[in-house]
Amino acid sequence: MNFIEHLENDPQYAGLNVNKGIAQPPVINPYLTERKKRYIYTPAEYTEEIRKGNITVLSQAVTLLESQKQEHQAVAQEVIEKCLPFSGNSVRIGITGVPGAGKSTSIDAFGMHLIHHRNRKLAVLAIDPSSERSKGSILGDKTRMEELSRNAKAFIRPSPAAGSLGGVARKTRETIILCEAAGFDTIFVETVGVGQSETAVHSMVDFFLLIQLAGTGDELQGIKRGIMEMADGIIVNKADGNNIEKAQLAAAQYRNALHLFPLPPSNWMPKVMTYSGYYQLGISEIWDMVDEYMAFTCKNGYFEQRRNSQAKYWMYESINEQLKNHFYQSPVIEKELQVKEMQVLRSEISSFAAAKQMLDIYFKDRK
Amino acid sequence: MNFIEHLENDPQYAGLNVNKGIAQPPVINPYLTERKKRYIYTPAEYTEEIRKGNITVLSQAVTLLESQKQEHQAVAQEVIEKCLPFSGNSVRIGITGVPGAGKSTSIDAFGMHLIHHRNRKLAVLAIDPSSERSKGSILGDKTRMEELSRNAKAFIRPSPAAGSLGGVARKTRETIILCEAAGFDTIFVETVGVGQSETAVHSMVDFFLLIQLAGTGDELQGIKRGIMEMADGIIVNKADGNNIEKAQLAAAQYRNALHLFPLPPSNWMPKVMTYSGYYQLGISEIWDMVDEYMAFTCKNGYFEQRRNSQAKYWMYESINEQLKNHFYQSPVIEKELQVKEMQVLRSEISSFAAAKQMLDIYFKDRK
Repeated sequence: MNFIEHLENDPQYAGLNVNKGIAQPPVINPYLTERKKRYIYTPAEYTEEIRKGNITVLSQAVTLLESQKQEHQAVAQEVIEKCLPFSGNSVRIGITGVPGAGKSTSIDAFGMHLIHHRNRKLAVLAIDPSSERSKGSILGDKTRMEELSRNAKAFIRPSPAAGSLGGVARKTRETIILCEAAGFDTIFVETVGVGQSETAVHSMVDFFLLIQLAGTGDELQGIKRGIMEMADGIIVNKADGNNIEKAQLAAAQYRNALHLFPLPPSNWMPKVMTYSGYYQLGISEIWDMVDEYMAFTCKNGYFEQRRNSQAKYWMYESINEQLKNHFYQSPVIEKELQVKEMQVLRSEISSFAAAKQMLDIYFKDRK
Repeated sequence: MNFIEHLENDPQYAGLNVNKGIAQPPVINPYLTERKKRYIYTPAEYTEEIRKGNITVLSQAVTLLESQKQEHQAVAQEVIEKCLPFSGNSVRIGITGVPGAGKSTSIDAFGMHLIHHRNRKLAVLAIDPSSERSKGSILGDKTRMEELSRNAKAFIRPSPAAGSLGGVARKTRETIILCEAAGFDTIFVETVGVGQSETAVHSMVDFFLLIQLAGTGDELQGIKRGIMEMADGIIVNKADGNNIEKAQLAAAQYRNALHLFPLPPSNWMPKVMTYSGYYQLGISEIWDMVDEYMAFTCKNGYFEQRRNSQAKYWMYESINEQLKNHFYQSPVIEKELQVKEMQVLRSEISSFAAAKQMLDIYFKDRK
């Protein structure tokens, strides 16, 4: 059994149809004919093929880095290190919005616009830590991006299926490096707009785009508190037909709300626009805005500053996450934690005394 | 040299005039006559005096828990554990607002209202991690609360002076326990509204109050993004004289903005009010709102739920903070960290490889 079949037999990938990062026939991608050659490449070979833009090998490398097997991880990490010098040359865009806001249709329209009118190569990634629970919907997303999934200049990869938000986010950030090394100059990172995952996405993108809908009345609800304030652009979907006026009213309300807050550190005043993903209206204006933002933040130095602080952020995040994992996965701790939690809830000990006792156990055990 | 003199000679308390939790003359507090008796109490004696409402001993205990000396910490922690069963019976209120919003004047007015009209005992604490850099202003705060600082039913304690936000927040939370055991039924935790400290305050209070000012034009700026969304109540200060209309307009704008967000988990729709701290107008209405909130959240179970999740949060926060401290303060790590950071910024290694290498060093060193 080669490693890909091996992965396909891995329970965590069951039903996930791994290693098929780009949708199946009809096929334009010339590399897809190479799919028969299934063997473990060396890290250098992976890197070489990825650098050539070989999407199949890129997809295999991503599958490797999503694997929980130590030997797969080792290869994947080496590939990432080798690809790193060739990464960074892309615009990374986070896209969020509540379910029903029309994210897939919009991404499809944005992608086709970027490919056909702006000569871009697009990778669409996702962060959805809940995907484990709803495996069906991950592939669903891909098939919903009908046009894009048939285009050779697009690479669509659903959210890693397993693990904590930290783990899922880490894999997505590593995938960005691989995609950039493969020549993708535009990266979308999609998320669902209802959880904590926006913060993770926000910490790995250059521009954060929030898709909204015109609500009913004056209550534009459904988006988690705090997300609106991370947005560099808010776009109100379904501005078509009878709905145009409602969408414009919603946009005006968002514009007013944004004025309540000070400028973000980029000094960029977030813009609010209306569009229609389905009828492909107002799409070009949105990408003019993103280009304008890029020019603005490159000029004032914020772009580089944000990228640097993100790189540092991920180093520290990764350290902190692994420190915590090591602690909470220690057998002595797992056993004791529930006892202590109950004692804290019953006010038998303070939160701090409980913490101290746990740490004493941990460090004693490690000696 | 007894322990108090000892503390006063400690460089970290230099100029801080420690152990004078309540302001100096003019003096009403009967316990202040006991200040001459300076000796180290046993934890049981501390607890007994605190339980009697002895503000001087309470103040000394807080000084102990703010000390970085191991032996002081040991006593303080024991006192906290002993006081814990008598804590919890208070309304904890976080108060924030930008500098200049009139926090001190407002707290003075709120406090006198609560003491005189609602028969409450009030402790005013603060979280200001920047206070180390501006030692002068900490005591300044206290003298600015003129009325309160002379009242025996009030206990005012400036922000702990030293340490990280996590450390400062932890000490404030521990101080809440001591104050509650001393019979204070209302706790204010004040913060500055410009940093990360609001999140810390939010995680230790029942009600979060945001003091705002009417801005100029429609730009109500100056408050950090995200803070407005934590508020259970927004109060617009300086609604007096010529300014009433402007304050009411600002309030209306905040009300509109709040409608853009879904209800918080408490199901309480945050209220927006106008008042004047200086002229003491609209104060009673604010405390009617707080009482209403308390009744509302006690009835729907959110009050208990929030307190419980805060207790758990602080246990996990405390664990995570100490895990991180242990790591980042290891001599091998301190040396290596800057090297790795530079390598990450130069894209020589990925954030994740850097993290992994650091952790390998750490765990190897600990064996």
